[in-house]
Amino acid sequence: MSKRIVIALGGNALGTTLEEQFNAVQVTSKAIVDLIEEGNDVVIVHGNGPQVGIINNAMVSLTHEDPTQGFTPLSVCGAMSEAYIGYDLQNAIREELLNRGMSKPVATVVTQTVVDQTDPAFQNPTKPIGKFVTAEDAKEIAAKTGYLMKEDAGRGWRRYVASPKPISIVEWPAIKILSENGAVVIACGGGGIPVTAEGNHLHGAAAVIDKDFAAELLAELLEADMLIILTAVEKVSINYKKPNQADLSELTPADAAKYIAEGQFAPGSMLPKVEAAVKFAQSRSDRTALITLLSKAKDGIAGKTGTHVHQ
Amino acid sequence: MSKRIVIALGGNALGTTLEEQFNAVQVTSKAIVDLIEEGNDVVIVHGNGPQVGIINNAMVSLTHEDPTQGFTPLSVCGAMSEAYIGYDLQNAIREELLNRGMSKPVATVVTQTVVDQTDPAFQNPTKPIGKFVTAEDAKEIAAKTGYLMKEDAGRGWRRYVASPKPISIVEWPAIKILSENGAVVIACGGGGIPVTAEGNHLHGAAAVIDKDFAAELLAELLEADMLIILTAVEKVSINYKKPNQADLSELTPADAAKYIAEGQFAPGSMLPKVEAAVKFAQSRSDRTALITLLSKAKDGIAGKTGTHVHQ
Repeated sequence: MSKRIVIALGGNALGTTLEEQFNAVQVTSKAIVDLIEEGNDVVIVHGNGPQVGIINNAMVSLTHEDPTQGFTPLSVCGAMSEAYIGYDLQNAIREELLNRGMSKPVATVVTQTVVDQTDPAFQNPTKPIGKFVTAEDAKEIAAKTGYLMKEDAGRGWRRYVASPKPISIVEWPAIKILSENGAVVIACGGGGIPVTAEGNHLHGAAAVIDKDFAAELLAELLEADMLIILTAVEKVSINYKKPNQADLSELTPADAAKYIAEGQFAPGSMLPKVEAAVKFAQSRSDRTALITLLSKAKDGIAGKTGTHVHQ
Repeated sequence: MSKRIVIALGGNALGTTLEEQFNAVQVTSKAIVDLIEEGNDVVIVHGNGPQVGIINNAMVSLTHEDPTQGFTPLSVCGAMSEAYIGYDLQNAIREELLNRGMSKPVATVVTQTVVDQTDPAFQNPTKPIGKFVTAEDAKEIAAKTGYLMKEDAGRGWRRYVASPKPISIVEWPAIKILSENGAVVIACGGGGIPVTAEGNHLHGAAAVIDKDFAAELLAELLEADMLIILTAVEKVSINYKKPNQADLSELTPADAAKYIAEGQFAPGSMLPKVEAAVKFAQSRSDRTALITLLSKAKDGIAGKTGTHVHQ
């Protein structure tokens, strides 16, 4: 039975250079085309942590060499990262489809995600971006730009930005049109370009959006049957890496709430994935979120592995 | 009567900095929404000359500062330029639509354009890109990268790349789905990311594609009724800037061929626009290409001004 599936893919899985990305998308595309081959309509959301960092560094380097170019906002760097990744990913998927005798449109949609400018996350920026600099340089950058610069785990100083929750995805109707008409869509790259709304106007925001939450919201808007959150483990565990570790095949929102209260899931790692999965499962009784490895996605959909989160 | 219209917009009209681009898209979007308001389905193709130059310079600056990042191909810079421009343009159009009480999906599709690797243009690169450098630096760059470096009009040395003819647009089916379902689509930015095909695989090519030819091809593929090529004059002229200058309201392919043979149209300027317009007009007897100013596009469609190219 074919399903509409939104897949959330980690930006780190795409590598930190163009060459790594090119190799990574070969592997990724095979696993994704496995799902398409079974008749599913697939929409891919990906992270962009390393990539938006590279592009941000490039635009800063440019300004050093040519000050007339001025400053490139993080939102514009995020937009560029969507094409930087989407171009390679759409090509690899297209080629894998053709190699298997399938021909479907594959397209990357430049996507914006609306966040609330009163989101408390803006008061407590938690996401480091860009290069490490010395304490002295950090002070100068902060004075010149107003950036929040913080010491990052003993490795130097970096810019920190907020990670607010997505409240709307501007281009979801276009993504839906494409998906409903048989196209494979890459959208919401990096969680989407973060924007805040003021009347009809959208402002770019200096923020990064969690791609799992963006994928969850997109899955709801597209009325997807399944949200697949890819991660580095086959199943979500409790008592992770302890003698009594237990891997979960099923997880209900109620159990998830209990485990979250116990601190079972690492913040910034498994916790947001579980939260996004629970949100999707709670949005409608027939919806399932699956958390697993890329290589296990096909078996996961078939119910053979992964952690299935549903009511 | 509503029409499907492909508009080709110059990259220079979008400015050479983000601030200029932001201001330019305000003007552009008003003229485009005028056409949408009359019920037309509009697909926008734009140039990216200045923008891909900025991004290319940024990626080169990055490599100077951090050699581990390696080299970013021109094709990847082209991809990024599509989102760099599309993000601002889609926002301005969306906002203008909403300000006039219309709500339509607006989306930028990351688009690749296939060129033929045996295109003779590859033997004679004519398009300068990137920064001016000294003769000495040019020699070093050529030795290190294999780039073709040429002296550019006494202003220094620059890299030159080919401008091959587009032979196919990879994402046209996705663009068609969107346009046929009421979305305003921005596609083929910079003429599309240039790629060559080898079996099912697409390689990025070090080339730039004329956006007027790309728009023409896209218009044929989308079975558009009209191709509008925007330029800096209201009408195409013969004997341009001479005492006997004559502005043309109508132009047939036969007359165009005669004027082209006379050298009436400047290569790299009006000539490719006329050639693209003629190609579209010749593709079907009920198709018209219009060459005019952005501010005259609406009157042009109504038959009041511009140069109408048709059989």
